[in-house]
Amino acid sequence: MEHCKVDVLVIGAGPSGLMLCTWLARLGIKTRLIDKRHNRINSGQADGLQSRTFEILDSMGIGQDIWREANHMLEIRFWNPDKDNRLYRSDMIVDTMPGISRFQQATLHQARIEDYLLKYIGQYSDIAVEYGKMPESLHIDAENAENDEEFPISVTIRQLTSEANGIPNGITNGSHIPNGIFRSNLTADNTDSILAAAKANVASHTETIHAKYVVGCDGAHSWTRRQIECVLEGEQTDFIWGVLDIVPITDFPDIRYRCAIHSASGSMMIIPRENKYVRLYIQVSEVTEDGQPLDRSMINQDTLLRSAQMILAPYELTYKHCHWWTAYRIGQRVGSKFSAHDRIFLAGDAVHTHSPKAGQGMNISMHDTYNLGWKLAHVIKGQSSRSLLATYTSERRQIAQELINFDHRFSQLFSGRPSKDLLDEEGIDPRTFKDVFEKGNLFASGTAVDYTTNLIVAKDPEHQADVLTYKQNYKAPFLGRPVESIPCILTGKQYLARRIPIGMRMPSYKVLNQSDARPWHLQELLSANGTWRVIVFAGDLLDPAQFARYVALGKSLDSSGSFLHKYTPKSAPIDSVFEVLTVHSAPRASIELLSLPAVFHPYNEEYGWDYSKVFVDDISYHEGHGHAYENYGVDHRTGCMVALRPDQYVSWIGELEDLPDLERFFGAFMKAQR
Amino acid sequence: MEHCKVDVLVIGAGPSGLMLCTWLARLGIKTRLIDKRHNRINSGQADGLQSRTFEILDSMGIGQDIWREANHMLEIRFWNPDKDNRLYRSDMIVDTMPGISRFQQATLHQARIEDYLLKYIGQYSDIAVEYGKMPESLHIDAENAENDEEFPISVTIRQLTSEANGIPNGITNGSHIPNGIFRSNLTADNTDSILAAAKANVASHTETIHAKYVVGCDGAHSWTRRQIECVLEGEQTDFIWGVLDIVPITDFPDIRYRCAIHSASGSMMIIPRENKYVRLYIQVSEVTEDGQPLDRSMINQDTLLRSAQMILAPYELTYKHCHWWTAYRIGQRVGSKFSAHDRIFLAGDAVHTHSPKAGQGMNISMHDTYNLGWKLAHVIKGQSSRSLLATYTSERRQIAQELINFDHRFSQLFSGRPSKDLLDEEGIDPRTFKDVFEKGNLFASGTAVDYTTNLIVAKDPEHQADVLTYKQNYKAPFLGRPVESIPCILTGKQYLARRIPIGMRMPSYKVLNQSDARPWHLQELLSANGTWRVIVFAGDLLDPAQFARYVALGKSLDSSGSFLHKYTPKSAPIDSVFEVLTVHSAPRASIELLSLPAVFHPYNEEYGWDYSKVFVDDISYHEGHGHAYENYGVDHRTGCMVALRPDQYVSWIGELEDLPDLERFFGAFMKAQR
Repeated sequence: MEHCKVDVLVIGAGPSGLMLCTWLARLGIKTRLIDKRHNRINSGQADGLQSRTFEILDSMGIGQDIWREANHMLEIRFWNPDKDNRLYRSDMIVDTMPGISRFQQATLHQARIEDYLLKYIGQYSDIAVEYGKMPESLHIDAENAENDEEFPISVTIRQLTSEANGIPNGITNGSHIPNGIFRSNLTADNTDSILAAAKANVASHTETIHAKYVVGCDGAHSWTRRQIECVLEGEQTDFIWGVLDIVPITDFPDIRYRCAIHSASGSMMIIPRENKYVRLYIQVSEVTEDGQPLDRSMINQDTLLRSAQMILAPYELTYKHCHWWTAYRIGQRVGSKFSAHDRIFLAGDAVHTHSPKAGQGMNISMHDTYNLGWKLAHVIKGQSSRSLLATYTSERRQIAQELINFDHRFSQLFSGRPSKDLLDEEGIDPRTFKDVFEKGNLFASGTAVDYTTNLIVAKDPEHQADVLTYKQNYKAPFLGRPVESIPCILTGKQYLARRIPIGMRMPSYKVLNQSDARPWHLQELLSANGTWRVIVFAGDLLDPAQFARYVALGKSLDSSGSFLHKYTPKSAPIDSVFEVLTVHSAPRASIELLSLPAVFHPYNEEYGWDYSKVFVDDISYHEGHGHAYENYGVDHRTGCMVALRPDQYVSWIGELEDLPDLERFFGAFMKAQR
Repeated sequence: MEHCKVDVLVIGAGPSGLMLCTWLARLGIKTRLIDKRHNRINSGQADGLQSRTFEILDSMGIGQDIWREANHMLEIRFWNPDKDNRLYRSDMIVDTMPGISRFQQATLHQARIEDYLLKYIGQYSDIAVEYGKMPESLHIDAENAENDEEFPISVTIRQLTSEANGIPNGITNGSHIPNGIFRSNLTADNTDSILAAAKANVASHTETIHAKYVVGCDGAHSWTRRQIECVLEGEQTDFIWGVLDIVPITDFPDIRYRCAIHSASGSMMIIPRENKYVRLYIQVSEVTEDGQPLDRSMINQDTLLRSAQMILAPYELTYKHCHWWTAYRIGQRVGSKFSAHDRIFLAGDAVHTHSPKAGQGMNISMHDTYNLGWKLAHVIKGQSSRSLLATYTSERRQIAQELINFDHRFSQLFSGRPSKDLLDEEGIDPRTFKDVFEKGNLFASGTAVDYTTNLIVAKDPEHQADVLTYKQNYKAPFLGRPVESIPCILTGKQYLARRIPIGMRMPSYKVLNQSDARPWHLQELLSANGTWRVIVFAGDLLDPAQFARYVALGKSLDSSGSFLHKYTPKSAPIDSVFEVLTVHSAPRASIELLSLPAVFHPYNEEYGWDYSKVFVDDISYHEGHGHAYENYGVDHRTGCMVALRPDQYVSWIGELEDLPDLERFFGAFMKAQR
């Protein structure tokens, strides 16, 4: 039997596994990535992309391409039955709340997102998906779990032969069209039977991988989850919904808008997609037309179309092109734990499942591993202590809980019947529905994520999520039960930047490069390269007193004992662990870059001065004024200092004199370098 | 000897040859593309990209990627000597005039542009560059030049062996750094010696290609030009300039701005580039330090650096990375003809040469073939008569003339010495220089191109370039001598859309898709797919009288005798020759797409209604209001109709009732289809 040592073994090459590998590839972590499927799946599955997901993809340099390829959803239209049960357009609202992000909710086929992630991974590493490989045993040497040098996990993986892979060929329920019914929660978990079939095949090959870390991104039927004795907690309902991806031929007037339709014959959601496609979420009746209980094996594209036609009547609907279909039972469940020994982690559908209608699944799954990947890499590279890893569970468990609370409410409203009149208390009132939808859109954008205090979120535990106007306006509507986490050793000064909430992702406004006047959205400067960032809002540098504060900060930063020098390897570029960016508020033309302290635009013997670190809040020639100081709630004169995590979340805020606090903050989990 | 028949033989695979092939690839024209070089050149050459070039690249779907990769130039800084001959920053102005385009001037290495063009060509065709092939004889059967079915041109091409290609290996003037001196106008044309060496090699292979059309994109030393007895007319000067591509290590404060520097020791232009690179245009002294005439074989990266250091003193300048260098003599020349029999065409440097400093070369060369490509394809496909081809010469000769007039003035100012004081009439006054620069930037943007009346430009010949405020403000400053061309058979009604000048490219403002509220820049709807477009500014469709006009137009358009049906093959989609787009001015939410005449959103049995043809001038949720009617100078109530060429230039403007005029316009050069 073969043996192999790797830093990280990733099980499952869907969006969460691939997003994890983008970090591991970018930061040079030795990784293997296995998937039990024999090929890429090229139809169906997820399609919704939130604002925050685009920001994340943009931090990797692939967001703009995906944004242009995707179908943008701008407006939601509501349809309800009138008193004579005739469908009418009752309302229309904006989809993504204006102003919360550079990007709005959009749709693009999961396979295309995976294409982009795979291309990115290939650019930075030789990590490739090993298809047709499935883990069959896992052992962890718990005694060595805290030893940084060890590879305490052993996983035996088996090469599946294509005959024995047990994955249906897509011919299901009499349908010849690719569908997801075999992966759906209407169908039993077939993991064991796949493995049994593979073991019975004498030609089947095994290999043992010794890993420092294992991440189970292996979906709702996660094998990894069972190995760490995690169970999904939550409830299933009896509501069954179908999904149909078609190019619709219809006289329904709003087929290219996102629609929420409540009709006397059931509910439907319309999600317009790229390339003329439209996804229909269709409520499936529990009983057949003659009152018999529904035989689930009868669900296919024809029965789904008939249900959609009934809901949409008197409008007509048919198609010539169907790309995919599936059906699922609505339920919300969260894993009882997210990791074992902070060595084995679960992410994505492996640890939270819910209904797909709000377009959250692929997003939250990718966000899980966008959160985990840099932390794993920093620990493996010896930059940070293992204590950093515990923040994965506390942060992502909180989000998973919020997600299922949101989905629970959202699905209930959607699956209920419309109210007949004001006295009909069991029915869903259109106004309530619209209200929930509107508030839910902020949660659904992904930009409202607000991590509670922990090792790397220096937030006041007494004033979580309440003091700031920003948060009051933009708060997720369905807070989950609080997750216990160890508070940060100190508290940032939130009042210095009222609209840069600690624990949330850095909002983005345009600033200009001091050296060439080019406007950049601040987030564009925060690329996913693994560095922490300190943004120095230097204030009005024309004011001599303020300039002196900035110079003094520069001197402290550049002293040999500062965190900058302590945690950056001597042989590495000075911006490889922390990148210090300046945004000042003096007029651009009044400031000379080379008159600023060198630490803010470091000199390199090969490339000269660095012209990419100093920015200004001033008007651009062609793209207006970003008004960054005003939008961030930072004082124009005196500024402040903001520490950002490699994933763009805000860790800490302080005065220009608060470097000692920042030293303590980093000292709590970073390791001194030589 | 081998024989081969093709529609088009393209000689030369630089930017103009590749741009030509994008059209030929996209429109399915059988093409061969040869180049005498044995490999791609991956350093040096052109780097400037104008606003209009980005618009063109965007019409092919590759503009945004190039825009993000390029270095954007926003501001120009002027440096002059003070009365004590010390350099000081005398002024700063915007580079690209705000508002004229979605894109501003930017820089990116020519090889990257070629990468994108090659990728595009590969997506649509199997056209590939055949390297190391050079034409050695050309014959045209002039008697059959007007016969559409003939292949009247025979070209014998020879495969160069790599030993005999005669192209220097880059070791020139003692420099080991790749350079362009062997292609420069300081060096004699080596075309004949390359061919002679190849012929002397017995292993060298030849082939005869029979072509309908031949396009010489073979550069300043064009072989094709000689075959059609075209000569370059114009003048050479004695001004010699050098070019140095380096990563500068310097304390000069404006190194990342475009700078025009006049110092007592000569002139220099700084062009910041992508990836920390900067291109320096350096005036080279005609005499050495000890007063001897300059030996041109002594020009290399070291002598150029020394000149730059003297000009920039007291600032320091050095480098560790040099990518490329070259030198050239300033001159402006235009070919005596642009084609022979409208069968053999010249484009790019083959037919106009000038100094590179204004960043025009690569742009105008690509614009030449962006103009020619669709015309060739339409004639070859039998859509249009050969009379269309004459417009290539009249249009591009006009532009070439404007270009060299511009460059002549620009170079003179640049190469002169700075004036000592107000009485120094021979010196260049900084204010004059700035003024010329400012006006020149509009010309340099490429958006001021204003074709005179011809077969496909229905402009009043009596009122060329004078009536419109738009044109008065945005006119190219240095008009060339007028080019004779046959006027259009009719005249469009310019007053209906005062800021959509006939003969210029369609300006771009944002409009919303009626069917999903997504904002699009109008130019984004004008992709380079070969179709003519009719934009119906339908006005206020809530006004019953106006709606009736729109319905009547729809009825005429849809009648079997309309140009739409007459010139579109019966078997082809109805939008394959002409695309009819609507932009109305009623509120988006007040109009139902399906209540509009079907011809404006045509039905397809496979895909249903077309949701991509009707737009509205209304406010968007996230990107403001485009105010398209106001910006185009079109009446909100009554609208108008605009005909656009496949290259986005405006052909004609009329009322909604002026379909008969449009029928006559198209009838003059289009061929009826079955």
